[in-house]
Amino acid sequence: MAEIIIGEVPGLTEGMIFETRIALTKAGGHRVTQQGIDGNKKDGAASIVLSGGYPDDLDSGDYLVYTGQGGQLNQKQVKDQSFETFGNKALLTSQLHGNPVRVFRGIRKESDKNRNVYQYGGLYSVTGSSHETGIEGFEMCRFILEKVKPLEAIALIPSISLSAGNEETRRANTTTLRIVRDTKLSKQIKTLYNYTCQVCGIRISENTVGYAEAAHIRPLGSYHKGFDVPSNIICLCPNHHVMFDLGIFSINSDLTLKGISGSLNQHSKHILSTESLAYHLKHIYKPK
Amino acid sequence: MAEIIIGEVPGLTEGMIFETRIALTKAGGHRVTQQGIDGNKKDGAASIVLSGGYPDDLDSGDYLVYTGQGGQLNQKQVKDQSFETFGNKALLTSQLHGNPVRVFRGIRKESDKNRNVYQYGGLYSVTGSSHETGIEGFEMCRFILEKVKPLEAIALIPSISLSAGNEETRRANTTTLRIVRDTKLSKQIKTLYNYTCQVCGIRISENTVGYAEAAHIRPLGSYHKGFDVPSNIICLCPNHHVMFDLGIFSINSDLTLKGISGSLNQHSKHILSTESLAYHLKHIYKPK
Repeated sequence: MAEIIIGEVPGLTEGMIFETRIALTKAGGHRVTQQGIDGNKKDGAASIVLSGGYPDDLDSGDYLVYTGQGGQLNQKQVKDQSFETFGNKALLTSQLHGNPVRVFRGIRKESDKNRNVYQYGGLYSVTGSSHETGIEGFEMCRFILEKVKPLEAIALIPSISLSAGNEETRRANTTTLRIVRDTKLSKQIKTLYNYTCQVCGIRISENTVGYAEAAHIRPLGSYHKGFDVPSNIICLCPNHHVMFDLGIFSINSDLTLKGISGSLNQHSKHILSTESLAYHLKHIYKPK
Repeated sequence: MAEIIIGEVPGLTEGMIFETRIALTKAGGHRVTQQGIDGNKKDGAASIVLSGGYPDDLDSGDYLVYTGQGGQLNQKQVKDQSFETFGNKALLTSQLHGNPVRVFRGIRKESDKNRNVYQYGGLYSVTGSSHETGIEGFEMCRFILEKVKPLEAIALIPSISLSAGNEETRRANTTTLRIVRDTKLSKQIKTLYNYTCQVCGIRISENTVGYAEAAHIRPLGSYHKGFDVPSNIICLCPNHHVMFDLGIFSINSDLTLKGISGSLNQHSKHILSTESLAYHLKHIYKPK
């Protein structure tokens, strides 16, 4: 089997149609010809195929509810599903790691009602996972997937925040506190630390798959001008990420912490930029 | 002074021009006629006026770098600024609480080069705070503010995530792990608990201003259909928010925790929905 590719695949563009599952596999879109989920627990799910096999599935374009894998015999549900099944595990990893998933839709052929063609629907994020008793009486795993927007749309929304301080003008009622973005390098650093916080050693995990956040020491962006390089990235739990970005604590050049006690745990393969550390200490840290 | 209004003010629309600071105050846009920042530490900054008074300020429309308050005498910088000054504290609160800030721009009049008119630029989020030595040699407080987009733009982007798994197609290199949104009710619950996590008792704070996240027990959205009501909201630290949403732990009806040890701290004025608790336990929690 070809190496797993998470995200975009060269040559594959949204809307493209494949006549068969084998053609889809050959194009590198979805490496397995039978199963609905292609992926593994470590890397996450690379792709899924929506084929209408589950009566509770929902597809409203940008928002999908996808039923996980398992428990079917001759296309009939005969037992409970579990998050332990490899495909469901893979989708959980995608949720924890923020990996995009390619979505293909099976569409019934006009000329032959017994055959599907497969259309590429683009990249989706796994934004939720839950389980419930399905209409056939068995426990089913469900995943919510939401369409990933093109970069242009993201660039338009550097930080979203809408709120209303008074009742009359409650046009919008949500405020965004924070958006956690990851770069490809972020993932490498998080993997190096096995999703363990370099400050407190906490490792948040669901079924051994870790969740952590990558923090840029010298912030990215046109004002602070930090670089997206490993020497400018550390792996933190959400709490220490918030505190680091707010300047509640900082890191001295000897890796002891300033503002809180302790010191940063550093992997021997990971060298931090002294310039970045000095920048955070001087500019972001707020002395008490 | 009129009561502080955070967010939109009735009758004030983007692009509106005011001839004087007094006219701006009368319209309820900015309650103070001299200072650049209107607000307080508790509620955050309601509004700021960009008047070009600081040479390091930057205004590229949707992205501003705003210099804080203090240290000027006769419009000349004579000493360091501090995050302790009330206006700077207010902007820090806006950053921690995710409150929007109204922005007004002073524009030199064509007919009278010594006078400004003031134009309403809309709502901005404080997305960063830092300090640095300014061009006059004194320490200056800086705030990054980014334009709040209309609700329509938000609705378009339920969850943003772009990533590339291979080098050739690195068109986009960021992945969104999670977006933390707040509703108006979220803020009430967080205030009730003084920004303290109901699970672990941690209170993240910068200069006594708290940071916490509101978690909906039964998730909002078209699939889970939870309500945005106080009985469906709890106040958590970022770590426990992530873990709760992923179903790593849940809450029994007697408020003991499931999946991790301990029990939920509940305020006497805050009654949780037993239906919501049962929903999370049944559908979101992933039994070990």
